[in-house]
Amino acid sequence: MSTRIAHCSGYIPDFSKSAAQRREHRLNILLTSAGRRNYLVQWFVQALAGTGRTGRVFVADRDPRAPAQVAADGFIPLPPYRSADYLTTLGQECARHEISLLVPLNDYELSALAGEPAAVLAAAGTRVLVPRLNIQRTIEDKYACAELVRAAGVATPTTRLGSDLLADPAARDDLGDRLVVKHRFGSGSSGLVSCTTDDLEAQLRVCALTAPDRSGLASSDPDQPRYDLVVVQSRILGVEYGIDAVADFRGRHLACLARRKLSMRAGETDRAVTVDPRPFAEVGGRIADAVAAPGLIDLDVIVDETGRSWVIDVNPRFGGGYPFSHLAGADVPACYAAWHSGLEHDPKWLTATPGVTAAKYESLTTIAGFDRE
Amino acid sequence: MSTRIAHCSGYIPDFSKSAAQRREHRLNILLTSAGRRNYLVQWFVQALAGTGRTGRVFVADRDPRAPAQVAADGFIPLPPYRSADYLTTLGQECARHEISLLVPLNDYELSALAGEPAAVLAAAGTRVLVPRLNIQRTIEDKYACAELVRAAGVATPTTRLGSDLLADPAARDDLGDRLVVKHRFGSGSSGLVSCTTDDLEAQLRVCALTAPDRSGLASSDPDQPRYDLVVVQSRILGVEYGIDAVADFRGRHLACLARRKLSMRAGETDRAVTVDPRPFAEVGGRIADAVAAPGLIDLDVIVDETGRSWVIDVNPRFGGGYPFSHLAGADVPACYAAWHSGLEHDPKWLTATPGVTAAKYESLTTIAGFDRE
Repeated sequence: MSTRIAHCSGYIPDFSKSAAQRREHRLNILLTSAGRRNYLVQWFVQALAGTGRTGRVFVADRDPRAPAQVAADGFIPLPPYRSADYLTTLGQECARHEISLLVPLNDYELSALAGEPAAVLAAAGTRVLVPRLNIQRTIEDKYACAELVRAAGVATPTTRLGSDLLADPAARDDLGDRLVVKHRFGSGSSGLVSCTTDDLEAQLRVCALTAPDRSGLASSDPDQPRYDLVVVQSRILGVEYGIDAVADFRGRHLACLARRKLSMRAGETDRAVTVDPRPFAEVGGRIADAVAAPGLIDLDVIVDETGRSWVIDVNPRFGGGYPFSHLAGADVPACYAAWHSGLEHDPKWLTATPGVTAAKYESLTTIAGFDRE
Repeated sequence: MSTRIAHCSGYIPDFSKSAAQRREHRLNILLTSAGRRNYLVQWFVQALAGTGRTGRVFVADRDPRAPAQVAADGFIPLPPYRSADYLTTLGQECARHEISLLVPLNDYELSALAGEPAAVLAAAGTRVLVPRLNIQRTIEDKYACAELVRAAGVATPTTRLGSDLLADPAARDDLGDRLVVKHRFGSGSSGLVSCTTDDLEAQLRVCALTAPDRSGLASSDPDQPRYDLVVVQSRILGVEYGIDAVADFRGRHLACLARRKLSMRAGETDRAVTVDPRPFAEVGGRIADAVAAPGLIDLDVIVDETGRSWVIDVNPRFGGGYPFSHLAGADVPACYAAWHSGLEHDPKWLTATPGVTAAKYESLTTIAGFDRE
């Protein structure tokens, strides 16, 4: 009985505080495009609790049936990021729910938010974890990104546009016999296929037919395949790793987390084992310095038989590999909640025990609000 | 203290019973190729408990890291189903663990078990839920299966072998302009792509390069694409449903469960809403009668704008759509456990509430035994 009274008295709001002060004490976090990543929502809920601040973790998604909503304190349906209403709605919802920290989880959403939208949201009190506009424009373009990686002094496969290869067959000469074809502005291995020079033209045509443009819009005219929306890379043979290069909110590189990939599914890491990150420290640091983005950068890395690390993809957001480091002891959501609260992180949150094997599996949840159609 | 004593006395084995009698009382169930389907393992554990019998639910997989093992009472690593050791090992493990009921969850494993292997296992006391050999040989071949469906009086898309279309362009005439290309012996939408007649040859080549043969073995010689391992179908436009036609262990059709598919991922239903199964009763019954297999048959059905139901795939096993019916009240694992125990099923286990929307999401688990590599 005494417990219940204590609960009730603690629940009375303090009207002597202004709205700004209340917001100061609360920390409301929004994860956009959370989709199927219920685990990440749960970890942010735990991270928020760890700060000792009150607050809520919201999930936003363009799909009102996104399962991650069941793990969140609140759900915000959004229009598609390409829609004219997207930024207006997002701004209104951030104001309404007093969101202090917005963590985008989708590549095209990063592109929609970088630059002015992030600045406008920041001025209204919502920090958005995105790279600067010119960096995001480079990273979202696999052709330009290869040049960014190379300029940072890191190995990356030779990369050509499909259109350049068709116009000038001699441009194939330095690609080798084993090739990878993928969407230039793709996300999550979209359009990715391995082939040989013999099959290149057939694969280019198939890949071009489904290739999205920079905004994620599919170019689907079968009479006009957009070969400039496809990149061809020399295929690096070796062992595949997933790396998170973690920076603080000023973009200063702090640490790397590393997993060896055991299997992939639907474009993301499905099984992995954590490994010692030290062999990737230099590569991770160089990319983090070049990108200078707040928070973690997900990197796909192949280590060839000579031990050289080749960076094959760069995504400045939580990717499908981070959870394997989390299960082995890392806690980047706790870092985010601490940094945003002006606190130091616990160094152990940026380390993971090597040798922990983990696997993803399917869970199901009913989604309320759609019981009768 | 008294509780602990009661537990201990209940734990003393009854040595007066013979091994056969003990097996009679126990019900050990094995799910092979359980992979990522932890939910199904949990439901079989609950179903077993519901019978009042003692027993264990085992999971087998060729991948020792399969996450479904963490939901099971025991894990059995198996060689690949194509390996010479597969049947020997499976037989030994079924004997060692006194498995009474074996539920295969993979198309190629159904093919490996149908016929003599199932008969040998049955003689040793393990019932294997597979169709008869001639039926399984037909179902595993999408070209032959289309004829089985048509002969059952059910609509199915016109289906041609890639090799026949290349040899005789006139064979394309009755396919229409919108086509679907897929692996003839594929599983889970493998190789599936929609295309037009303009892109058919490029898509055929790409599909043939990755097509498996009847045993699931990829035919990967880029100089010799096996066009007879690819089927081309006319594409039916309409609304996609997933149906389970459920039969008892004698193959007698009892009921249908039905979902409207909302989205797919990695070849399986990712989001769905349960619907009234009555419009699918006749189609489900005809296929169930033609297949005459024990347990459920997963069907992919498209309803066109005239209301006609077209069956586009037949899989005599738990598919990725069943869990949506389970969340809405169905319980086929409980039927299996009851039937195998000589009991009647509760009719409500074969019904599901219409209008329940559900979604799959990602969960993660560490896998023990791989902590140090």
